[in-house]
Amino acid sequence: MTDFNMATMASNAKKASRAAAQLNSSEKNTLLNAIADAVEANSAAIILENNKDIDAGREKGLSEAMLQRLVLDNKGIKDIASAIREIVALTDPIGDVDKLSLRPNGIQVGKMRIPLGVIAMIYEARPNVTAEAAALCIKSGNAVILRGGSEAIHSNLAIAKCLHDVLSAHDVDANIVSVIPDTSRGVIEELLQQNETIDLVIPRGGEGLIRYVSENSRIPVIQHYKGVCHLYIDKYADLDKAVNILVNGKTQKPSACNAFETVLVHGDISGEFLPLAAKALKDAAQVKVHACKNSIGYFTNAELATDEDYHAEYLAQEIAVKVVKSYDEAVNHINEYTSDHTEVIITQDISRGHKFVRQINSSVVMINASSRFSDGNQLGLGSEIGISTSKLHAYGPMGLEALTTEKFVVFGDGQVRV
Amino acid sequence: MTDFNMATMASNAKKASRAAAQLNSSEKNTLLNAIADAVEANSAAIILENNKDIDAGREKGLSEAMLQRLVLDNKGIKDIASAIREIVALTDPIGDVDKLSLRPNGIQVGKMRIPLGVIAMIYEARPNVTAEAAALCIKSGNAVILRGGSEAIHSNLAIAKCLHDVLSAHDVDANIVSVIPDTSRGVIEELLQQNETIDLVIPRGGEGLIRYVSENSRIPVIQHYKGVCHLYIDKYADLDKAVNILVNGKTQKPSACNAFETVLVHGDISGEFLPLAAKALKDAAQVKVHACKNSIGYFTNAELATDEDYHAEYLAQEIAVKVVKSYDEAVNHINEYTSDHTEVIITQDISRGHKFVRQINSSVVMINASSRFSDGNQLGLGSEIGISTSKLHAYGPMGLEALTTEKFVVFGDGQVRV
Repeated sequence: MTDFNMATMASNAKKASRAAAQLNSSEKNTLLNAIADAVEANSAAIILENNKDIDAGREKGLSEAMLQRLVLDNKGIKDIASAIREIVALTDPIGDVDKLSLRPNGIQVGKMRIPLGVIAMIYEARPNVTAEAAALCIKSGNAVILRGGSEAIHSNLAIAKCLHDVLSAHDVDANIVSVIPDTSRGVIEELLQQNETIDLVIPRGGEGLIRYVSENSRIPVIQHYKGVCHLYIDKYADLDKAVNILVNGKTQKPSACNAFETVLVHGDISGEFLPLAAKALKDAAQVKVHACKNSIGYFTNAELATDEDYHAEYLAQEIAVKVVKSYDEAVNHINEYTSDHTEVIITQDISRGHKFVRQINSSVVMINASSRFSDGNQLGLGSEIGISTSKLHAYGPMGLEALTTEKFVVFGDGQVRV
Repeated sequence: MTDFNMATMASNAKKASRAAAQLNSSEKNTLLNAIADAVEANSAAIILENNKDIDAGREKGLSEAMLQRLVLDNKGIKDIASAIREIVALTDPIGDVDKLSLRPNGIQVGKMRIPLGVIAMIYEARPNVTAEAAALCIKSGNAVILRGGSEAIHSNLAIAKCLHDVLSAHDVDANIVSVIPDTSRGVIEELLQQNETIDLVIPRGGEGLIRYVSENSRIPVIQHYKGVCHLYIDKYADLDKAVNILVNGKTQKPSACNAFETVLVHGDISGEFLPLAAKALKDAAQVKVHACKNSIGYFTNAELATDEDYHAEYLAQEIAVKVVKSYDEAVNHINEYTSDHTEVIITQDISRGHKFVRQINSSVVMINASSRFSDGNQLGLGSEIGISTSKLHAYGPMGLEALTTEKFVVFGDGQVRV
């Protein structure tokens, strides 16, 4: 690793990004199909390298859950290939001009969608991210620099080799995809200084990683710290829908950032709703409850909620419950504790529903639907490259379009400014 | 000033931003019209305060040009009022949902335009920016924190008083607009740490200010360092159009960032074009020329261009000239020296023109038009709040829409994820 140079890699990526930007959709899809094929054809070699990571991980004493995320078996390889083929099927946004307007002096003005340039991804254990993030960046005409977890370094380099072989075989600059071979922490620091060549950094992982990247980066960063998603059961809620959505949003996959962490219940219906909720949460997954003093009596497995509970992202079968006196109290609570991820209202009252959607400016706001839909695929974006809970550039789940920007195009016929 | 607290101002602005986001267009337009009226009605008081700034500036030995930019007379006040009334006439983007798509499970998904939240503007001498930036932020439903140059502090505070009186008279939280009363440099540093409450920083001024802000900010920053705008005269150019556009783009307002700084001339037509260009540039404004060895012979007032000349933003009646052997050499030159601001091709060949537009990814790319159109107003955005030459969030001249983002909205009827 001694001859690895971060600045050189970034500057080569910048050069390659110009070539990537000029590929048309057919060329990009040909590459992606070939990459999917190559990943499958080389599954034995990739799995061999993956085994080295697993062995090293076991020696280092990684938890069983961590090791599970690291494993690439034949099914894992097939999943990667089909994820890439799904990206082939997505519409290529590059080159789109939404409309051209004619200015009074006869110049035509429009905005054309273009790639961002060079994207850096910093992520943790899962080696499938290496292939899928690269595929999304290729499809959107960007170059990408990938820095996966050191635990997955052999797997990541094996996948990178596949990608490079395909790019070279198609006479495309292989620097469109770079995997950082250096696993030291210092290299991230160096990466974050390459603001002359890298356009965007997307960190994916725990809050610690994201804070570290945000605080040390001179490159713009997509931020997503945590998901404290709220469910508000309005006075005019259909209680069957409310119970179903509560159970689905909390228990289906509690480790996801789009799971509910707090449920707010309007006082006028809490007496009717809470017994149903208590039974359903217990039946579904023995959910542990942190309840306010007005709701604790309804639960058998509850502790009194503290202020901290309303800030908590449990990522487990645990939920905070609070009875609110009014719609306004619910909105104020959400505004105070929001992580700007996803908030849901359950109501049959159309005015309330639309008011909630106007008043809450989290990245995803829903009426009568499960927070578990707060995901790029479920929302119709196709594959997701990440999620942003800061409002700049992209807000909410990010698909292909979030890897692009728009430039102005002007078509004149000799006009000058007077 | 001892009791001024930056964090308190930012947190009050955050609270006020929730109120700002809920104002509808009629309410915002009523406020803006009242502000325009108030600025005119209080012109005497504002001019009195402005005189204090002028006197202080003269004492401090500010240049005459600087003092000129600082002056607010009756005409200046009228200009501010009419700029605000133009903002009233702009379409309010907030609340727009472009389209709702229906997902297979019946949920409707759309994206709704919302304000960014709290915008901080850091700018230099001109006091009119105080009123106009505040008006753009109000129109787009944001709260704004303004930090103008210390030279204009009395003028800025007088304008702020007008704004606050109007907001209070309409029962609107006056913290929607805050002018920082503290003129010390340290307060900017403090401002740039308020990433929990401020969503975006827009610095407007010299490269030094913008670099300082970018390097010290924990809040996302709109960056625009300089404008090294290129004009490429293609082999298939209409030479009359080429000469007109060269003269207009270079000489009409050389201090603007959208003025041309370098002209590249295709070798096949340089013998015909350069004598016309030399005469026209001399006649128009005695433009000083930094020419390559293949073009220097055509100019009477030329020096041999250095590599630095091709990086230079002259902001004066000066231009760099280079003869290129091919279209590709022109594109490579632009890619190497670009500031990502504005580049123009002059050609009658439709394939060349469109190829240039696809290949050059500066924020504004034009065919057969003057770079001086690279301006929010000229491009049809209405008032301009700034320009971004970095690709994140906004790219190119920024109008109202650049002060907004989009959230996802989901309308369901009880759906849960399976």
